[in-house]
Amino acid sequence: MRIAIQDVTPETDYAEIIGWVHEIRDLGGLAFFIVRDRTGLIQVTIPKKKAPEAVVEAAKEVSRESVVRVAGTVKAIEKAPGGRELVPEELEIVSLAASPLPLDVAEKVSAEMDTRIDSRFLDVRKPRVGAIFFIRSVAVRAINEFLFSRGFINITTPKVVAAATEGGTELFPIAYFEKEAFLNQSPQLYKQMMMAAGCEKVFEIGPIFRAEEHNTVRHLNEATSLDVEVSFADHNDVMQLLEDLIIAVYRRVTEDCADQLATLGVDLTVPATPFPRISYAEAIEIANRTVPEKISFGDDLGTAAEKAIGEYIGQHYFIVDWPTAIKPYYAMPYPENPELSKAFDMMHPRMELSSGAQRIHQHDLLVEQIRAKGLSPESFEFYLKTFEYGMPPHAGWGLGVERLIMTMLNLPNIREAVLFPRDRHRLTP
Amino acid sequence: MRIAIQDVTPETDYAEIIGWVHEIRDLGGLAFFIVRDRTGLIQVTIPKKKAPEAVVEAAKEVSRESVVRVAGTVKAIEKAPGGRELVPEELEIVSLAASPLPLDVAEKVSAEMDTRIDSRFLDVRKPRVGAIFFIRSVAVRAINEFLFSRGFINITTPKVVAAATEGGTELFPIAYFEKEAFLNQSPQLYKQMMMAAGCEKVFEIGPIFRAEEHNTVRHLNEATSLDVEVSFADHNDVMQLLEDLIIAVYRRVTEDCADQLATLGVDLTVPATPFPRISYAEAIEIANRTVPEKISFGDDLGTAAEKAIGEYIGQHYFIVDWPTAIKPYYAMPYPENPELSKAFDMMHPRMELSSGAQRIHQHDLLVEQIRAKGLSPESFEFYLKTFEYGMPPHAGWGLGVERLIMTMLNLPNIREAVLFPRDRHRLTP
Repeated sequence: MRIAIQDVTPETDYAEIIGWVHEIRDLGGLAFFIVRDRTGLIQVTIPKKKAPEAVVEAAKEVSRESVVRVAGTVKAIEKAPGGRELVPEELEIVSLAASPLPLDVAEKVSAEMDTRIDSRFLDVRKPRVGAIFFIRSVAVRAINEFLFSRGFINITTPKVVAAATEGGTELFPIAYFEKEAFLNQSPQLYKQMMMAAGCEKVFEIGPIFRAEEHNTVRHLNEATSLDVEVSFADHNDVMQLLEDLIIAVYRRVTEDCADQLATLGVDLTVPATPFPRISYAEAIEIANRTVPEKISFGDDLGTAAEKAIGEYIGQHYFIVDWPTAIKPYYAMPYPENPELSKAFDMMHPRMELSSGAQRIHQHDLLVEQIRAKGLSPESFEFYLKTFEYGMPPHAGWGLGVERLIMTMLNLPNIREAVLFPRDRHRLTP
Repeated sequence: MRIAIQDVTPETDYAEIIGWVHEIRDLGGLAFFIVRDRTGLIQVTIPKKKAPEAVVEAAKEVSRESVVRVAGTVKAIEKAPGGRELVPEELEIVSLAASPLPLDVAEKVSAEMDTRIDSRFLDVRKPRVGAIFFIRSVAVRAINEFLFSRGFINITTPKVVAAATEGGTELFPIAYFEKEAFLNQSPQLYKQMMMAAGCEKVFEIGPIFRAEEHNTVRHLNEATSLDVEVSFADHNDVMQLLEDLIIAVYRRVTEDCADQLATLGVDLTVPATPFPRISYAEAIEIANRTVPEKISFGDDLGTAAEKAIGEYIGQHYFIVDWPTAIKPYYAMPYPENPELSKAFDMMHPRMELSSGAQRIHQHDLLVEQIRAKGLSPESFEFYLKTFEYGMPPHAGWGLGVERLIMTMLNLPNIREAVLFPRDRHRLTP
């Protein structure tokens, strides 16, 4: 009966493991293999004169990254990983790997990102890379559990759509039978429609698609978005929810991923709360102290500004009270000062993680704002209709899952946080 | 402080609720509203002579499906829903609905599926329809919890791909910058690649896209698939896993959705285990007893055959030992009888829910099978490469989430199980 490598301790008598041959060292009379499964590494030691002949034969034939089944006695030994080694009575090659490998899994030779993604199946075998995707899975689990425990309903909205969320730019067109369709940029309109449907608290974790032309270390053309929408809530309510969710995810990863964090060399601390809230006006004032190109009220914050403010604040924070002119049409303007809106961004010191707002729920005001953005209300008919028959006040946000993982684990490139990135030039594997 | 309508009991003294006006009856001196939120219904009774003037004014103005806030005293009363009524001291119209409604939420007038989907936001307000999507969310929660508790890792694979899973048919083409790409039909190749990556147990819940021309009550062009893949497992292991998962979902829905099941009039029973396993040969023998068009060995089972077998078996069951010729190239043939493969379908009496198999993990055999299907190994290079460097034996399946919900709740049309269906003729809302 196979056991996980992490469960083989110096006290184990006998163990059967299955894994990949991570390293091979042959010292003549002694051969050492390091065998790896997703839980850890173990040294397999073969004293050639004493070992069964079949074991010695298999050991001769096996190559790095082959899958092997090993069964034998366990001995405590200080110098080996985990303080134990396995001396095989059986050694079976389950799947022989060809040589040479297109990528070095033992990481003695480091590789460029492109080479790594080309052989992603080998790249993910590296304990450091495997750790990232284990942590991502734990984060997704934590998100699900947090939102279900708060009474949210999980929804699925279509990815093939007839209309753009925010006008006609940055869309991938699809030939949908005889019609033209698009890949959805965001579930924004659909999650708002679920507020009109009386669902009150909904979330979705799913793909979003943006035909952005530029290739950067923090953009993907296909990304994963966590989208949340809540009825009878305002921007302050959903900012609190977002802060609570970030804390829940960090806490869960800290608790469940100690080994993986150690493998990555990440000393994860749960962010301090409450996250500071600064206004957009304060944000540009802070940025203008250091950035060379000064920002005026009404400008977007660029990368340099985000960096300057992030360095100044030094932790997760919110930017609130944005100019209505630079936020999407569905953000609710303050009634007493409609130049500003109840919109926010949630920032990690390195970059924006989430955008949200209390939404406009009044049909006529929404039409006015769509027009003010130079868009045509006719293209939003299916959406606008839902505001005429009892749309409740509501608020929500979208959070980039890859950016959450990238910033949590201090990864240099967002491509590190997704198994098979899609960018300007990459469609495979 | 607002409370959920289901939490207002005959013993409550005072309550504030927010919800939609489900029905209005005016008896002259008395007005009755039924107010609805996602948790239930309550009668609001307004004695016009005694009620505050502002309440009477608002009651005059309000229309069906408007959002209202009501605060007042609760009285036990036998004839009202839940045995209580609310007598308002405050009645505020939060969001006034236009009249007439494009769809009758109180369901006194039944509507065609197309009319319902056109106004899906109103359709989902119907307690019967809302119940379906609440149950779907609970099912998704149960799937997540079950698989995480079994040590699975959640993965996300790309939906924009360069190559087809099973040849070039039924694909939606995308213009991806200057390249041609496709919407993925299935995560099949990607989840198998994660086996080569050493992830051992993975799952994904995500959209799949099939450009099937025919419009039926059990096909969608965009559907949700639960995909599972397990290393060092065979077809029997993953059939057991699938059976356990179905039981876990049914059990959870039975426990958590008693009210919603009652609303739907569904008397849900957890299926008996083990699910019967019949061979493909037995399946056609059973079908041929009743179907007019006889099936020969090597034919696909059609709708009529599935129906005949389903009636005979009368519960969830597996069909195993399929002819290799009619299963995909990645299904593992039995070594002692390669005409048959270690593939299975999991059936509800009404239809197929899931297909799976032990997969071929040997590179050369896989190439041979791809050729045998008339496909070109060159188009699968990114996939085949992962079989050369230590691919473990593995098995898995895909389960249609909408079909699971449709059969569990005895829904006549798969469009009942998805918020915004995409079919041959429908791209909106």
